[in-house]
Amino acid sequence: MADRRGLLIILSSPSGAGKSTLAKRLMEWDPTLSFSVSATTRKPRPGEVDGKDYHFIDEARFRTWVSDGQMLEHAHVFGHSYGSPQPPVQAAIEAGRDVLFDIDWQGAQQIRNSALGAYALSIFILPPSIRELHRRLVTRGQDSEEVIAKRMRKSWDEISHWDGYDYVLINEDLDETEAKLKTIVAAERLKFAQQPRLSDHVRTLQAQFEELP
Amino acid sequence: MADRRGLLIILSSPSGAGKSTLAKRLMEWDPTLSFSVSATTRKPRPGEVDGKDYHFIDEARFRTWVSDGQMLEHAHVFGHSYGSPQPPVQAAIEAGRDVLFDIDWQGAQQIRNSALGAYALSIFILPPSIRELHRRLVTRGQDSEEVIAKRMRKSWDEISHWDGYDYVLINEDLDETEAKLKTIVAAERLKFAQQPRLSDHVRTLQAQFEELP
Repeated sequence: MADRRGLLIILSSPSGAGKSTLAKRLMEWDPTLSFSVSATTRKPRPGEVDGKDYHFIDEARFRTWVSDGQMLEHAHVFGHSYGSPQPPVQAAIEAGRDVLFDIDWQGAQQIRNSALGAYALSIFILPPSIRELHRRLVTRGQDSEEVIAKRMRKSWDEISHWDGYDYVLINEDLDETEAKLKTIVAAERLKFAQQPRLSDHVRTLQAQFEELP
Repeated sequence: MADRRGLLIILSSPSGAGKSTLAKRLMEWDPTLSFSVSATTRKPRPGEVDGKDYHFIDEARFRTWVSDGQMLEHAHVFGHSYGSPQPPVQAAIEAGRDVLFDIDWQGAQQIRNSALGAYALSIFILPPSIRELHRRLVTRGQDSEEVIAKRMRKSWDEISHWDGYDYVLINEDLDETEAKLKTIVAAERLKFAQQPRLSDHVRTLQAQFEELP
């Protein structure tokens, strides 16, 4: 068992605000970070890899994982189930590795209220504008007008929960937002509770003090 | 009144651990920081400037300030009184400026337990070794052996309260510790509670959302 328990770093934002790109950049910045791959019952989109982008599982299996307490959080969005499998998260944080979550406000809330809530650190990423979000969905050309309208309602639902997060960033510029994310993670690691090994240092100081003339 | 209330940034460490140098560097880094000049009943040392290094006041005046509730925190150390005058701190944080405190664990504890405690952020700086602290006091050549012994006991007393702080740093290298301090301050400013102006941004997003086709 590691001397330090890993943090649960939660990133939330409406889709299109840059969250996935930022998560990827954080992972590249710190290879010790462990990414929590969500499980979902929706079908893979072109290019998505099972076990990397998502664990693609069926509804029956999803329900079993939930009832067995294997899901740290889960939610139902647009007719599909999404959740964060607990075992890999547990293993990572017990090994002292921080875990990055790319999840929505419902998941963030469930983790905050879970037994691991004390180790959670949540960051909300706001878009500079709604028009820009809308434009990106339209440009992507993947979805019908109806689906886009649904996604935009979901975006607003997501944004309306921004005030439950520890930190909030407006993603005006990706590089700047990336730098701020790193600042947040670096600072959290300097917290007293995140440095149990410092107790050894203080014991050494005490021994040195007692040896003074 | 500013839309954001300033933070109370508390630096503590045993004397000789580099705290004053670090405080000075932080002040140079961010000129919007306001330094809380302590009041003391001790005599000025050579080179110390009244109103800049300390407010040098007599015991009667100190007691009046305390009884009038004009001291945010105060303590008695080595036969002298030290305290942080409240009015300049109040004025600075209400103007949205963060205030830097170079105070000991007793002061830090009092601020944490005060009405302003919710705005306090405390950082403890540990020395790499006690031998080094001792060596610096001896080399400085200002103090008798007896005074040095007393200071070292005070140092240990200070270090033994390291675990009450939000953040802890070992000052192995001044530049590195300075960078870490800046990281902590920058991250704290990204917290939800520190960015009340973001509410306006979210209201704008809402208006944009309602205008969507």
